[in-house]
Amino acid sequence: MILTVTLNVALDVTYGVDSLRPRTSHRVGSVHRRAGGKGVNVARVLAGRGRDVAVTGLVGGPTGALVREDLRAVPGLRDELVPVAGDSRQTVTVVSGDDGDATVFNEQGPQVSPREWRMFAERFAVLVREASVVTLCGSLPPGLPEDAYARLVRTAAGRGALTVLDTSGAPLLDALGARPDVVKPNAAELLAATGSEDAGAGAERLRALGARSVVVSSGPGGLLAVTPDGRRRAVPPERLAGNPTGAGDACVAALAAGLADGAGWPAVLREAVALSAAAVVRPVAGEVDAAVYERLRTTVTVEDLHAPQPH
Amino acid sequence: MILTVTLNVALDVTYGVDSLRPRTSHRVGSVHRRAGGKGVNVARVLAGRGRDVAVTGLVGGPTGALVREDLRAVPGLRDELVPVAGDSRQTVTVVSGDDGDATVFNEQGPQVSPREWRMFAERFAVLVREASVVTLCGSLPPGLPEDAYARLVRTAAGRGALTVLDTSGAPLLDALGARPDVVKPNAAELLAATGSEDAGAGAERLRALGARSVVVSSGPGGLLAVTPDGRRRAVPPERLAGNPTGAGDACVAALAAGLADGAGWPAVLREAVALSAAAVVRPVAGEVDAAVYERLRTTVTVEDLHAPQPH
Repeated sequence: MILTVTLNVALDVTYGVDSLRPRTSHRVGSVHRRAGGKGVNVARVLAGRGRDVAVTGLVGGPTGALVREDLRAVPGLRDELVPVAGDSRQTVTVVSGDDGDATVFNEQGPQVSPREWRMFAERFAVLVREASVVTLCGSLPPGLPEDAYARLVRTAAGRGALTVLDTSGAPLLDALGARPDVVKPNAAELLAATGSEDAGAGAERLRALGARSVVVSSGPGGLLAVTPDGRRRAVPPERLAGNPTGAGDACVAALAAGLADGAGWPAVLREAVALSAAAVVRPVAGEVDAAVYERLRTTVTVEDLHAPQPH
Repeated sequence: MILTVTLNVALDVTYGVDSLRPRTSHRVGSVHRRAGGKGVNVARVLAGRGRDVAVTGLVGGPTGALVREDLRAVPGLRDELVPVAGDSRQTVTVVSGDDGDATVFNEQGPQVSPREWRMFAERFAVLVREASVVTLCGSLPPGLPEDAYARLVRTAAGRGALTVLDTSGAPLLDALGARPDVVKPNAAELLAATGSEDAGAGAERLRALGARSVVVSSGPGGLLAVTPDGRRRAVPPERLAGNPTGAGDACVAALAAGLADGAGWPAVLREAVALSAAAVVRPVAGEVDAAVYERLRTTVTVEDLHAPQPH
């Protein structure tokens, strides 16, 4: 089983408007609400590919009830979320009909008490026994200790599960000492965390701080993987237009599935690029286009890089 | 008792952000949620002034449950909302910390079935027996007949209750034939409804279509009233800075209270201008500043206009 952790689940609300004009009132033409948060999207992708997957994390309040109701509708997805007293957050994405551009408003999430965090950590220690791979994705809600991900990574490792970490800023840096198996920053997150404009040098810096392997996503530029097995670049054969929101989550899903299967890095990276690109062409995070995926998984190029990356 | 009708109640959500920048992601610093919709705000103002007031309208779903929970916390406000199957709407107002400007996203509201509308109309006919004045405010949710307000105005009149109507567009024009006692458009709504740039001529046009009296609000320019008793302009003695969102609702509250008391138009208009201005200085709709109200209610000027308004 793959266990995806989303400590700050969200109800993702998408508003379609004719044109976003600051300082005016807008009539919202279309409204979509769905369970979200990076780990929830990862789980959707895995469930959609027939994988045995469970979602855990913290959920609460009337917004949390809507999140759980939406998760119940996903075939094959097991809800192992742990209740908290606060109300789960909402995110609002405003999509402008004139240019298709998205403007996003992210609530921070509920205040979590030390007792709630302890109860979650205990539940996680039980759930992880069934898991071969654990993904840890997204921001931390207020009240959690900064080393929350470090603690979960250590618990997972102690139970023999591999870990994939996709977060940024302090939670990322604080988790590295726990030696996660794979860390997946995007290029901007890597720059923010390491100060390095060079992805290869930045990835090496995260490895020096404890990450076993680092996979850096660069949108249409594909992936750079720095692993004990060498350095590789995987690039999609074509540039796909669409919504990049869910591409990182699809990438994490592929990395988790590859680790679970014990696949080699070239195969894992090929799948990760194909699944990311197949997510870009779908309008919402957590979905992938099967035809694009099938076309790309055999045409993604994976290149061994022996020399350091030029600046 | 004053009965306020809000057919499209809302959960008004306010997000504080540092600066609204289209096509980017924003961290929401502060989140406030409260029951809204124009008639709910009118009822808050009336309840705050010690008036016997009840709220009716249509409410449903998890968002509607949050609306009702918030209403329960308002002292003296009676919840007579009628349940529907759909989920009540949410509005999102993004307030930019750098300039204080507000950008608003209004969902349209739940689809209402003909049967739900019939059940509401029956319940309204019972409630209105207790009411001396009924206010009918705001937009109509999808599924309601365009003559919804006309029907409610006729029912109210048949039971001896006076009516104050605050809506716009087709629902406004469709209701006039039912002869509402007071119609309160703002200047922009009056222009949209009549095509007349001249407020006096526009108001006369609404009266010709059936409104007994018309009170046009023009923000800091005050009110123009065209009534069977003549034409008057009421102007605040000072210009107050703040949030104009709730000013129209405070105005409707004062008009309803004045009708309920059988007050003369000069007194009604003085109160309406003072209460509107006292709402402007408060950050959220439905609240008024008691000190500003007390200061202005004796200093508002009300002028009899005998000549037609110049262009």
